[in-house]
Amino acid sequence: MVPHLITALNGPINELEQRILESMPAIERWFRLEWMEHTPPFYSSVDVRNAGFKLAPVDTNLYPGGFNNLTPEMLPLAVQAAMAAIEKICPEAKNLLLIPEKHTRNTFYLMNVQRLVQIFGAAGLNVRLGTLDDSITEPTRLALPDGSELTLEPLLRSKRRLGLKDFDPCTILLNNDLSAGIPKVLEGLHEQYLLPPLHAGWAVRRKSQHFQAYEEVAKKFAKLLGMDPWLINPMFAKCGKVNFQDGTGQECVQSHADALLGKIRRKYKEYGIQEKPFVIVKADAGTYGMGIMTVRDAKDLDELNRKARNKMSVIKDGQEVSEVIIQEGVPTYERMNDAVAEPVVYMIDRYVVGGFYRVHAERGIDENLNSPGASFVPLAFAESHHLPRPGEKPGASAPNRFYMYGVIGRLAMLGASYELEATDPDAEVYE
Amino acid sequence: MVPHLITALNGPINELEQRILESMPAIERWFRLEWMEHTPPFYSSVDVRNAGFKLAPVDTNLYPGGFNNLTPEMLPLAVQAAMAAIEKICPEAKNLLLIPEKHTRNTFYLMNVQRLVQIFGAAGLNVRLGTLDDSITEPTRLALPDGSELTLEPLLRSKRRLGLKDFDPCTILLNNDLSAGIPKVLEGLHEQYLLPPLHAGWAVRRKSQHFQAYEEVAKKFAKLLGMDPWLINPMFAKCGKVNFQDGTGQECVQSHADALLGKIRRKYKEYGIQEKPFVIVKADAGTYGMGIMTVRDAKDLDELNRKARNKMSVIKDGQEVSEVIIQEGVPTYERMNDAVAEPVVYMIDRYVVGGFYRVHAERGIDENLNSPGASFVPLAFAESHHLPRPGEKPGASAPNRFYMYGVIGRLAMLGASYELEATDPDAEVYE
Repeated sequence: MVPHLITALNGPINELEQRILESMPAIERWFRLEWMEHTPPFYSSVDVRNAGFKLAPVDTNLYPGGFNNLTPEMLPLAVQAAMAAIEKICPEAKNLLLIPEKHTRNTFYLMNVQRLVQIFGAAGLNVRLGTLDDSITEPTRLALPDGSELTLEPLLRSKRRLGLKDFDPCTILLNNDLSAGIPKVLEGLHEQYLLPPLHAGWAVRRKSQHFQAYEEVAKKFAKLLGMDPWLINPMFAKCGKVNFQDGTGQECVQSHADALLGKIRRKYKEYGIQEKPFVIVKADAGTYGMGIMTVRDAKDLDELNRKARNKMSVIKDGQEVSEVIIQEGVPTYERMNDAVAEPVVYMIDRYVVGGFYRVHAERGIDENLNSPGASFVPLAFAESHHLPRPGEKPGASAPNRFYMYGVIGRLAMLGASYELEATDPDAEVYE
Repeated sequence: MVPHLITALNGPINELEQRILESMPAIERWFRLEWMEHTPPFYSSVDVRNAGFKLAPVDTNLYPGGFNNLTPEMLPLAVQAAMAAIEKICPEAKNLLLIPEKHTRNTFYLMNVQRLVQIFGAAGLNVRLGTLDDSITEPTRLALPDGSELTLEPLLRSKRRLGLKDFDPCTILLNNDLSAGIPKVLEGLHEQYLLPPLHAGWAVRRKSQHFQAYEEVAKKFAKLLGMDPWLINPMFAKCGKVNFQDGTGQECVQSHADALLGKIRRKYKEYGIQEKPFVIVKADAGTYGMGIMTVRDAKDLDELNRKARNKMSVIKDGQEVSEVIIQEGVPTYERMNDAVAEPVVYMIDRYVVGGFYRVHAERGIDENLNSPGASFVPLAFAESHHLPRPGEKPGASAPNRFYMYGVIGRLAMLGASYELEATDPDAEVYE
């Protein structure tokens, strides 16, 4: 099933789809050559927005949740990709320690953890769960909606290694994005593989750094295909010190928003796009859709009411917003019946393993679909992104569209590789 | 769907299944470590026989046909594995030249070729077909039963490279087992990757060398699991110079068959197996089920009639039999309704990508199911080998059985790796 794209079938996206399909061998070759120079993140998910005239990643998650939204048919692909990933990192591995988020009452999230346990178990590892929650001091069972259960165990830290009771892992896999900062227990683990590395967590990571790296990737890719990088690249700007409560730095946000809206307007004009531009203002660090604002006119920022100021001041785990990113808004025009649908692409190592649509009936096309309480319905991609059908009419073939989303997802993932290289505190500098 | 296994559910195979499932992390780790030292064949298929008391590979094909028998659900796995394989061998590849068998009238085989074109195309390569058939001097279209078509092109050989008109491939993939000898056109291609290597073809390859290498693998694996290697290893012997027409070397075959039958008898006694032992006599080189004989008593070899002598004297492409392998017969006790079912496991690179059962109503449990005219019905594995379910009752779970078959298939593939290393004419010797 492909959600219906409400924009015209002759739009730039169909040209892009056609060009991507025609260039498939060149694209795959390009990715292979990039992976010779860069290491893909261990796993990732990318939110993609298809505006009909533009197709772009808007969020790249290096601690993906939602693996439970993939279909059973996608699972073997995930297992095979996990085997490839493990083989490269720690072929001698027997044990994998998985550290999930603390919110143990969110059963949707727990189903994701269960799915990860299943994937890495089927890839041939003993998987156990360790928690960063200090209040858990002995093995604790958590019931899942499907009747199964998970056991969370307290972490055991020695001077050099991290494990559980009678469990010494080769690899520690974080499914916790470290929004609350880097826990001491994870520091200085030089004998074990900690994945993703600590600087991929929101304690260090910045969206602006990601999109700067992505821009580089998008430009290279656009050159390969002979197209305007803007078609796949959301423009952005950032402000360093912002406090919406007392108005600090609001001027910076306002001037950047204004400039960005102007740039978008010019691009829309160039392509004859009849849309009202908008920008998204959000925290430069952090996730979970808190602290996100849609701005259509920079003047609107003058009139923020108390509620809006509060919303923009708190993100996950109570961090105060201080850095913000102002990003070109990409409307999503995919619809399932009347509901807005946003594709999400899942990757393990360099492989796209599946994807689904976030379908949300109550949200607008220019709103964030992953906001708190967003009761989206996951709708798994119905056909494989691995089996495009060249020659089919652009815009009408689900496998072709999924292949295209897989390409965009991988571009964002490659952007994350560039980003993590640039921000690696242990990187050796040869210059 | 799992074919019904007619042997008792408490037999050694269920113990084996249980031990394999319990040892999954150890097994996967062992494979990972083996692949650090050895290179898997580019692709392979393995015929497995499940006797209830013994589970063993009986044929390892390094030029697998039958990819068309895999389900559409297995295709993405094949594509992903093909991506991994290409990446390791020739990441800069744009073009793949596929050289199929010459028998262009066998539409089943052509459907296999079409499937390979699809898999490597979806992995991001321009795939074209070159033929070793000299009578094809210009691009020739072949119609397929599904209405599609394939184009065979004449090969173009320069001094150093092989290609087609306007097509210079990085990699040449053989789906032709070279039973007729090594064609001149394939010799001396030092600038391109020729896969599998020439010494994997039946012009050079010997089953006895494969099973000698497999024995080594089976012993290592049995040590890992603490079990008798015989449970997964078919015993064998070989005779160098045999001509069934004039009786040359018949004595060698007879004495080896007699000795092997005695060894099997002792093993059957040790395990309390109430079966009549048999051995298979077949050409040590070659494939396609020609020249295969079931022997239950060495004396039977005295009384071969003319028909049997003729049958044993010709194999594919008219090669005379001169070397034979005498192999322990492993009955297959899997049944679909009343029909004998033999599992076949398909692999690309180190990954099991799928499998199917050869279901044959007219054959006995001790006969070869891949013989000429064998009108077997392919029945694809209904569930993934990638998702075993530890804890389910041994012998009753399809995913668990498929996982076990995948392990045996990979052991045989690893055997082929050892074999190709041992027989590599260009190998550097460090001793």
